[in-house]
Amino acid sequence: MSEELIAGRNSVIEALRSGRSLNKLYVQDGIKGGSIGEIIALAKDAGVLVEYVKIEKLNNMAEGIRHQGVVAMAAPIRFYDLDEVLAIAAEKGEAPFLVLLDELQDPQNVGAIIRTADAAGVHGVLMPKRRSCPLNAVVAKISAGAIEYVPVVSIGNISQTINELKKKGLWVVGADMDGEADYFGANLTGPVVLVIGAEGKGLGRLVKENCDLLVKIPMRGGVSSLNASAAGAILLFEIVRQRAGE
Amino acid sequence: MSEELIAGRNSVIEALRSGRSLNKLYVQDGIKGGSIGEIIALAKDAGVLVEYVKIEKLNNMAEGIRHQGVVAMAAPIRFYDLDEVLAIAAEKGEAPFLVLLDELQDPQNVGAIIRTADAAGVHGVLMPKRRSCPLNAVVAKISAGAIEYVPVVSIGNISQTINELKKKGLWVVGADMDGEADYFGANLTGPVVLVIGAEGKGLGRLVKENCDLLVKIPMRGGVSSLNASAAGAILLFEIVRQRAGE
Repeated sequence: MSEELIAGRNSVIEALRSGRSLNKLYVQDGIKGGSIGEIIALAKDAGVLVEYVKIEKLNNMAEGIRHQGVVAMAAPIRFYDLDEVLAIAAEKGEAPFLVLLDELQDPQNVGAIIRTADAAGVHGVLMPKRRSCPLNAVVAKISAGAIEYVPVVSIGNISQTINELKKKGLWVVGADMDGEADYFGANLTGPVVLVIGAEGKGLGRLVKENCDLLVKIPMRGGVSSLNASAAGAILLFEIVRQRAGE
Repeated sequence: MSEELIAGRNSVIEALRSGRSLNKLYVQDGIKGGSIGEIIALAKDAGVLVEYVKIEKLNNMAEGIRHQGVVAMAAPIRFYDLDEVLAIAAEKGEAPFLVLLDELQDPQNVGAIIRTADAAGVHGVLMPKRRSCPLNAVVAKISAGAIEYVPVVSIGNISQTINELKKKGLWVVGADMDGEADYFGANLTGPVVLVIGAEGKGLGRLVKENCDLLVKIPMRGGVSSLNASAAGAILLFEIVRQRAGE
């Protein structure tokens, strides 16, 4: 049976709170304090089996991830369809707000963007099946558990997906250093999918050509680039700001 | 002699480009391609001694930081005075734009915020001497070399510094989950210092009381917080946006 490992207190708490199906919770022998009591109570309420084990066992399971005395085994993350995600937006009476990660490989960045995307209230994060980093325990941990809340859509060909989204009325906005407009000069209030490129190489050429608009973040300093997760945070919350009507 | 280690290609390139005084450059034997040629050329132009060494020596020096075949030893980062930083703003004819990091301990976050602060064109980053993470090679690496460009001011007591800044006409804006206003509803166009709190615990109580204004980032998702560096990116670029008059 395929299982996923969730390590660390925040990640485990968010998994429990979101109602995710956990197969088992492992807690370090004799550990107390902080949120340990809450985690055990939540697990018991949810009918999750709790086993107390030595720290060495947790260290082995977590493979280098800081587990803080708790590790859970869970059913794998459920992926969504594009239509499901658009239905979520419709149910909320909101214009669709999606993020597409163009072959991001760094689990730190993917986890960070998923966390920020959740905070910004996006309806779904789209990731290509190929050449993306897997949604592993590192991503889950960096996302601070947000991976439990944000629907993730695993897509095939990026350009085909972009064309499908365009047909459904979404505005496709790519983040690119050579973008024609500063991001804050663009109208981002309608149905939108924000496309973020990989560290170092940015958006793929075909992806760029398929965007309705390329926006750039003005650089005022000595170094000429931002980290992908910082760029994502700035653009995601510009959409939040514009949608709030400020 | 106190020296600092700089590891990784981008970090070393930025140190060279910014004119920082390097004592020596170590390059992995036989390594070629990518930016190695540029790094060696820049080092020679700057009169920096280049030594070719085995990869094991670089691994030992870099202590776990990805060095990508290059490590430099440099004079320590120069710290600035508050008055110097304000003079830089005045020279540029810009209203002062500062960031104060309230006891941030995580070098990943400090490095990330310094990188974003550079991109946003801040005039200085203020860090308390006590209970901040040191400006080590990890911070430099995560900052992608931005540490070479952004003046850092090492301050004593945070509250005293805030009061001094107020007397000099700066508006002190703290980022806080319980802030009274959404950040995009606040006028941030004047002389400003943005105060960012540590992961998990946020701003200190006294620091909060000393702020002119506490702003919050609205949370629309399942998880109720943002990473400090994502929050910093959002707020820093809101100031950029407002100053651009959009």
